[in-house]
Parts: sequence; C-alpha cells; structure tokens
Amino acid sequence: MSLEQELRELDQADPLAALRNEFALPDGVIYLDGNSLGARPKAALARATQMIEQEWGEGLIRSWNTAQWSTLSTRLGDKLAGLIGAGPGEVAITDTTTVNLFKILAAGLRIQAERAPQRKIIVSELHNFPADLYVIEGLADLLQQGYELQLIDKPEDLPTLLNDKVALVLLTHVNYKSGHMFDMSATTELIHRHGALALWDLAHSAGAVPVDLTAAKADYAIGCTYKYLNGGPGSPAFVWVSPDLCDLAWQPLSGWWGHARQFAMEPHYQPASGITRYLCGTQPLVSLGMVECGLDLFARTDMQALRRKSLALTDLFIRLVEERCKDHPLTLVTPREHAQRGSHVSFEHPEGYAVVQALIAKGVIGDYREPHIMRFGFTPLYTSFQDVGLAVQALVEVLDNQEWRAPQFQTRHAVT
Amino acid sequence: MSLEQELRELDQADPLAALRNEFALPDGVIYLDGNSLGARPKAALARATQMIEQEWGEGLIRSWNTAQWSTLSTRLGDKLAGLIGAGPGEVAITDTTTVNLFKILAAGLRIQAERAPQRKIIVSELHNFPADLYVIEGLADLLQQGYELQLIDKPEDLPTLLNDKVALVLLTHVNYKSGHMFDMSATTELIHRHGALALWDLAHSAGAVPVDLTAAKADYAIGCTYKYLNGGPGSPAFVWVSPDLCDLAWQPLSGWWGHARQFAMEPHYQPASGITRYLCGTQPLVSLGMVECGLDLFARTDMQALRRKSLALTDLFIRLVEERCKDHPLTLVTPREHAQRGSHVSFEHPEGYAVVQALIAKGVIGDYREPHIMRFGFTPLYTSFQDVGLAVQALVEVLDNQEWRAPQFQTRHAVT
Repeated sequence: MSLEQELRELDQADPLAALRNEFALPDGVIYLDGNSLGARPKAALARATQMIEQEWGEGLIRSWNTAQWSTLSTRLGDKLAGLIGAGPGEVAITDTTTVNLFKILAAGLRIQAERAPQRKIIVSELHNFPADLYVIEGLADLLQQGYELQLIDKPEDLPTLLNDKVALVLLTHVNYKSGHMFDMSATTELIHRHGALALWDLAHSAGAVPVDLTAAKADYAIGCTYKYLNGGPGSPAFVWVSPDLCDLAWQPLSGWWGHARQFAMEPHYQPASGITRYLCGTQPLVSLGMVECGLDLFARTDMQALRRKSLALTDLFIRLVEERCKDHPLTLVTPREHAQRGSHVSFEHPEGYAVVQALIAKGVIGDYREPHIMRFGFTPLYTSFQDVGLAVQALVEVLDNQEWRAPQFQTRHAVT
Repeated sequence: MSLEQELRELDQADPLAALRNEFALPDGVIYLDGNSLGARPKAALARATQMIEQEWGEGLIRSWNTAQWSTLSTRLGDKLAGLIGAGPGEVAITDTTTVNLFKILAAGLRIQAERAPQRKIIVSELHNFPADLYVIEGLADLLQQGYELQLIDKPEDLPTLLNDKVALVLLTHVNYKSGHMFDMSATTELIHRHGALALWDLAHSAGAVPVDLTAAKADYAIGCTYKYLNGGPGSPAFVWVSPDLCDLAWQPLSGWWGHARQFAMEPHYQPASGITRYLCGTQPLVSLGMVECGLDLFARTDMQALRRKSLALTDLFIRLVEERCKDHPLTLVTPREHAQRGSHVSFEHPEGYAVVQALIAKGVIGDYREPHIMRFGFTPLYTSFQDVGLAVQALVEVLDNQEWRAPQFQTRHAVT
C-alpha cells in the first residue's frame, strides 16, 4: 500500500474527521502551530459579532445582566473544567497565564508560610517556559522574605531538589520545547511526600492531552486558552485551585471581582469563597466570549478520543521524518514513549530557524524555539493524517534542495 | 425662546455634533452611562471582523509579525498618550486597571523603600472606587512589611494625613460617585512637598476631561479604556509611568512581554527599559484592537473642545433638573464649580435605585451607585443637548408620576 493510500485510509477511519469542518483554515496551509495559536472556530466570528453589535452596541451597560457578562468567567470555567478533571465552580477564565501564575504562587506561599515557615525554596525547571521563572523571580524579589528559586536541569532530577525546605514546586505538565510530559499523579505524590505544594502549568496540556487534576491531587493549575483550546489570539487564561486550599488564603490581586459582595462597594476587601476570589478586574469580554466557541467543539468528543488521534499523528510524523530525512542532521527531542509525550513534536536542526521559515513559505506552519528547535503541534480537532504526509514532504524538499539557504529565511522576526 | 428651541440651537451650533454619527447608538435610547461603558464606535465591528477573519483566521500565528500584534499595546498607548499629557513611548494598553494598579503601587513602594524606608503609609480616599483600596490591602497583606492604608474622608482633608511617614498617595482624579475632580497639579505638588509619590487613577478622566500628567509632574497613572474612550466591554486598561521613575524599579508581575529580550528565552528576568517593562502576559488581541477605533475618534477633535461641550452639557443637566424637579428630594452631589467637576453628574435620591430602573425602562440609561446615588455620564463625543432635555423630561415623569414605585423597579440586579 502506498503512503498516500495509507494516509487516506487513516483519514477515512478517523472518527474526529468531521470536526475539521468547524474550523476556518486558510487554503494551501498546513497548520502545525495550534500549540502556539489555535485555528479559528468558524463560530467565533458570529459570536464576536453578536457581542459587538447586540450586546455592546444595543444592550450597552445593561448586558452585564441581560447577556450575563457578569458570570462569563466562571460559566466558561465550568465548560473547561471537564477537560482538566476539575469540578464545577472550580475554574475561572480570567486575566493572563502570567497574572494567574502570580496569584497561585502567592497564595501557595502564604499557606506554606503558615504551615511550615522554614520552607523558602520554590523548585521549577531550567527548561520551563521562561515567563514562569520570571514570575517566580518577580514575586520573590517583591516579597524580600528570603525565597529562592532552584531549578532542575532534567525532569528526572526532581527528587534531588526535594526536601523540607521546599515550599512549592511549579512544573509545566507538557514542556513547551521538548514536548516531554510529566506523570502528573506520580509527580504530585512525590512532591506531597516532601511536604511541598504542586503547581501545574497546563499551557500545552489543556485540550491537548487528558488531564485529571482531581485524581492527581494537584494543588493549583493555570493555563491558556489560545493554544489547543482555540480561544483566539491572547484569549484570557484559566486558573484552578484545589477546593481544599482555595479558601485558605487570599490571592494578592484582590480586585473587586473577587470580593464577596462586589457591588456593595465596601471599603474593605473580603474575598468571595471558591474560585471567584481569583477574579480581579473587568475582563475583555469579546476576547473572553469567543473562548466558548472552542470549548463547545470539545463537547462533541472527549479527551480519550483526542489523545488516541494525537498519538497516532505524532507517531506518524516521527516515523516519516526519521524515514525520509535520515540523511540530514535532525535529532528528535520529544520522548518516543507515549506516556511522556504531549501533542507536539520537536526536532533539533543546526539551521532550525531557517528551515522553519522555508517551511512557512511553502505553507507548512510550525514554529521555532531557541536553540535550534523546530516545533510542530498536532491538534487532533483539525489536523489530518494527510496533513502530516504533506508536511513531511515539504520538510524533505526544504532539506534535500537546501531551500532553507535562501537569504530571506535567515532574517529574524520580532516574534519567533 | 422655548426650551426645545434653545436645545435645538445648541445642537446646531455644536462643532462636535457630527461625531455622533460615528457611533452605533440604539434607537429610543438616551445613553448617559458612557462613564461606565462607552457606546460602540461603528468602526469597531469592522476592526474586530478583520482581526478575527484575516489576522487570526488567515494569518494565524504569522500575524504576530505581519499584523504587528506584538507592538499593539504600545502603539495604541502612543495614540492615547496625547489625551493624558504623556509622551510617546510612555503609555501601554494592557491588562486590567486593577492589575496595573498593583504594578505601580509595588514599583512605587520599592522606590520609596530605597529612598526613605521609614515611609510605610499609603494614603487614599474612603470614597475612592473600592477596588483601588482592595488592591492596596492585597499588596500590603502580601508584603508583610508593615504597610498601612490611611484614608481621607473628604478631598480637602488630604493635608491632614501628609507627613514624612507617607510613601504613596493614590487618588482617583475624578471620583466615580460624586464626579468631584482634583486639581492634579496642585495636589501632586502638595504630595511631593511631603516627600510622597503621586499615583493617579484616571478611570473617569481619560477622554472625559483634559489631563496633563507631564505638566502636573505626576509619578504614576492608570485608567481604563472602556468608559469615555469607548474601547468596548472590558477592553484592556492603560498604565503610564513618569520617565524619571520608570527604570528605577521592577514591577513585580514580571512576565515575558516585559523582558528586555523576550524571545531569547533566557532563564532570568531582565526588564526592558521604559513602559515595556510594565507589560506582562499575552493580551486579548481582539478586545485590545478595538480600542483603536475609539481613540481614532479623539484624533478628530481635542480635549479642550470636548471639555467645553462637557461642561455645557453638565451645566444644562444640573440647571434643568434643579428647575424641573425642585419638589422632589434630590440633592446634587457633584461640585458646581467647573474646576472641580468631571464629566458626570450625580444626584442623591432616597429611592435612587428604583428611579434609575424606571428611567432605564423609559430608555434613559444612567446608573446607580450605593448609597442613593443616581449617576449620569455626559460623553461629548455623542451626547446632544436635546438628549439632555429628553433625559430630564423622563426624570420629571418618573418622579411626578411616581413611576419608580412599580414593583419591577425594586428588584436588585447582579450588577448595579
């Protein structure tokens, strides 16, 4: 059987194939960057138009009540909850990933300061998404209470840093570069055994791989909605806190949306109970509202089905690249083992930046991350097996014909 | 001359009258709540459609470069700068008012901690917008360094709390309830004379009254874009920092958008110089992009012309209400003196909540703030003198006929 035929048959047998029709994908593009900005659900334009024309234009200020804007963050949180193993009322969609991370770090440190004040270390990964590390640095610098950030170099090094001085461990479940995935349950148990709290960044997990925060007994989680959840560019992020911890501490961004009696306009802050206390200021409603369109598509399948297709797509991509590009200096960075793999695949190439630019010029959109990493995201909601075949064909052409050497592919853009 | 004729002639002589055509206002509505959510510029729908269909849908991840998403916060900040007396490169539109307030409070405290560590008091107003006080409380509680919030009861009490223990003074330039406006220059000078830094909340000022942060020698300012600037529901807020102070301290929400080399993915935080360091996480781009449509309308006039019309509108409203409702228990809360008045007018009425609901039912949309305050915002970009006459006529009917007594006007909504 030819490769073409194999891929066609895989697509024909794909139970998720019809969902691709719900996305507006440009002609001539194979989009393997849904792990950075998900494609547009067709419904998003109509939803935004409704919010702008009717809710804003006609309803005006009344829409806080009539269009239920005032509860949108938690209503959408409830729609997302099932994808990450959270219960109703436990998730809010609000602010940015970075801001939400600051909230949970500060709340977690406060709880630990009361339980075990000698715990002054926050552990994370050297190869974590840098913004996560910056937020820890910013908070530690603000507090001036002797907090220290310690970093593991490799996931398996985690036990070497765990001891009775560690307050929090912040890990990204699926690494943004390598695609490595932690075993959330086992890792959380390890962290708890050492008396620390487990904070999970789900930026590359939510909607990409099955997550069960409740079963894993995680303490805090944050993540974004604009990657695999297809919420739109810069759509607001989410925050989850274990119900066991939520009411034990303030989060410090104590805005009026987190107040127990928001419109009583009392001069003192009294946090609401539950995840509502993680709300802060007025949210960007049009960007927030479009998040619902992506979430509604997940309601038509489930994470197990998505995971099966995701692994089939990434397995196929790895196999075809290794078969067809074996004469080029490509190194697989992503774990081969399913249990350790998210939904994107990264290869190192010494000229990775230029190769990715040459691929984009051919309509195959992946992205590049320093140093040397070419990253390809596979979003099972809209990526087909034939897409994988065409993407590898383009990569073969770029490498075999040295297309990446063209001068226009050497210039760095502002955003890479 | 009849009142009708007077108002018609005022509208005919209004040099700003044509700008009303740039807004999509619903039929049968007189909108006096632009101080809470500005009306929709007609251009906003086309802008959002372009961002959703072309920039997100077609451009996908490439739009960070091709549609210049990556510089949108500061490009729009430059468009806003002229309205508040800021220079180019000094303003960013990002995050929420509450989050931005946290950033400037923390940065200001850090600068004062180095200059004058004995200064542990933050002064604000009891009748300030409560969220501003909550943020101070949240930060003080987080820091655990002995910071204390002290509140003045009336604007003129400010001198009584100023001394060499005060680190920061946070004031809202135009009070959200009373409409009272501080003299920013004189007040900043007073604050500086006592060695404190002056932080200004411009939520009810930007686009409503002339503001000159540079001339006033202010230190920090924040504000929202969804009120008088007509940016859309929950559109991102703005932050300004005096160039003299900006690079002296980190702000603690140290996300990757504020890094000096954002895409180098370095493990340590190094803030960018200038207002860029006040950026944090990825912004909600569709909500952010629509802010430009409101700002572009301000480019067709200037704050002096808007101020002249604003005062004429509020003078007229006060005069007509006092003439025509004199048999009802209405008390003017807003200062009569022009120099102390923003662009909204508030009256107390014992049944203010029900009166506002009855007005809304008649198509005159103002809003209510505890306790007893009926608040009417006058946005000179789209409010006409005849609107003022019709609004007062509706108020006369609601009061004279006791329409507010109807049961449906007694029920409190979630958002008031």
